[in-house]
Amino acid sequence: MKAVEASAPATIANLGPGFDVAGMAIEGFRDWVRLELLPGEDVEVRVEGAAARGVAAQPERNSASVAALKVFELAGERRGFRLRLRKEVPVGAGLGSSGASAAAGAYAANLLLGEPLTLQELVKCAAEGERAACGSPHLDNVAPSLYGGFTLILDVEKPEILGIKPTMEFEVVVATPRVRLPENKTEYARRVLPEKVELGLMVRQQASVARLVASILRGDLEGFGKAVSSDYIIEPARAKLIPGFHRVKETALREGALGLSISGAGPSVFAVVRPGEAGRVAEAIRREFNSLGVEASILVTKPSTEGARRELIGDP
Amino acid sequence: MKAVEASAPATIANLGPGFDVAGMAIEGFRDWVRLELLPGEDVEVRVEGAAARGVAAQPERNSASVAALKVFELAGERRGFRLRLRKEVPVGAGLGSSGASAAAGAYAANLLLGEPLTLQELVKCAAEGERAACGSPHLDNVAPSLYGGFTLILDVEKPEILGIKPTMEFEVVVATPRVRLPENKTEYARRVLPEKVELGLMVRQQASVARLVASILRGDLEGFGKAVSSDYIIEPARAKLIPGFHRVKETALREGALGLSISGAGPSVFAVVRPGEAGRVAEAIRREFNSLGVEASILVTKPSTEGARRELIGDP
Repeated sequence: MKAVEASAPATIANLGPGFDVAGMAIEGFRDWVRLELLPGEDVEVRVEGAAARGVAAQPERNSASVAALKVFELAGERRGFRLRLRKEVPVGAGLGSSGASAAAGAYAANLLLGEPLTLQELVKCAAEGERAACGSPHLDNVAPSLYGGFTLILDVEKPEILGIKPTMEFEVVVATPRVRLPENKTEYARRVLPEKVELGLMVRQQASVARLVASILRGDLEGFGKAVSSDYIIEPARAKLIPGFHRVKETALREGALGLSISGAGPSVFAVVRPGEAGRVAEAIRREFNSLGVEASILVTKPSTEGARRELIGDP
Repeated sequence: MKAVEASAPATIANLGPGFDVAGMAIEGFRDWVRLELLPGEDVEVRVEGAAARGVAAQPERNSASVAALKVFELAGERRGFRLRLRKEVPVGAGLGSSGASAAAGAYAANLLLGEPLTLQELVKCAAEGERAACGSPHLDNVAPSLYGGFTLILDVEKPEILGIKPTMEFEVVVATPRVRLPENKTEYARRVLPEKVELGLMVRQQASVARLVASILRGDLEGFGKAVSSDYIIEPARAKLIPGFHRVKETALREGALGLSISGAGPSVFAVVRPGEAGRVAEAIRREFNSLGVEASILVTKPSTEGARRELIGDP
């Protein structure tokens, strides 16, 4: 039977003040989906790879297969398939792991059916995959994982996405502290957020959003770093889930990072650095976490201009 | 003694979702300030012009002279001056009248002293003029009145401004319904706003802010119109101060307007229209207000790329 393979990158959601609105794809990790039509209507899922542990393989709970099923549904196709998900994006790190699986699943399904859906429609399908994995259909990881580069959600309900290819040269230091996390981390990280925000604080945050969007579009790297560092609502609430967050941020900025914030729901933090300066910043962040008795794995990477993409079919 | 003359344009603050953050200068009305050094330390203020009625002429309450005094203070100069303010920008319409006076006053004072301050510093001085006139030092009118074109406040506290020259061609229809307003309209229009905003609503609004900023920077006129029309927090609260607002908006959009919202604190509304389509939209808005028994004065104009500027000295 016909088969395709697709992959989608890890992502950093929010980018500081752009909660649920802004995101960026990064290089370093991808989730891979191999999808094959089956004669009947059965759906089979197999999960493997370095980050496979704990990832649900039930078709109705796996974010890649739920996303693929949604693509089949929107395309009006009722077919069975076999999905093999190879997971590279670490789970529970705040790097859009289930989003990357959902993006790869949706993208592969669309390829398999002859691309009946637009990228924007695939975001919707992948968001359903996210809902299966995390309880709510957020777009801020699946959108950059599908589009690559930067994405802005212009309308949360519809959804409507603006994809922006990065024009700035920079490196990204991602540090994932090894901390014990509650069972459903994403839900938990949402529960610590305030239910309501004072109007004056919202205005400050809107100014930060304006800075974030303007810096990305104008290719203003210093402005981008500053924007990433100026989240007045989400970061203060979630910082307490990350041991030593404020000290880590201070140290990274002192060592030349242009900005630092929490990646998605955390516990990873990410720093925006000028090309060539990632090593020093990475070392400083690692040292700071270690001084608190916390181990942290470090990834030095950069934005991925490519989002979800077709891959050559590997060995079965 | 040395004298200078400067003018500054009317402005539309907020531009829909960009409450306290976004603004745009428009053609059609300017406030003019003539400033002349005096030998002593006395400050004299005279207000004249079509929109002079009700504008305070006390040096410590007039927004132009307060702004000028602040420039003198920041520049370390202690000199008396005579200020003549010629007001064209209608008062209480939501078109940044006191902001235009403050911008012209600050700009003229800076010229008079040999331009010791930057435009960004003048925003701060003009904001003090706003405080004298309206009770609080808002930036969203004085910034575009000084810079011209579009302005974004990137940091409310500092303040930090990004000026953007418009790259789109469009017309603006401003309709000012004749309604009875409370004594201090700006304060009143702030009191109707919610004190706190639900997080989910804030996210929707942030998406609108992203759309607003992206459309301005990308020269995307349709996107700009859509952004102007998607304020989920301020417009719903203030719409009740404007008779028939929702019907007017609906009618304008049906007649081809790309977007419509409230200008600043109102009661003016403004519509973004494609070049050449302003007449039809203006007529439809007027008719809609009239059908409710409300008279409305209409201005068909366009963005002003020029902000505050030096003017030739006229007759004394």
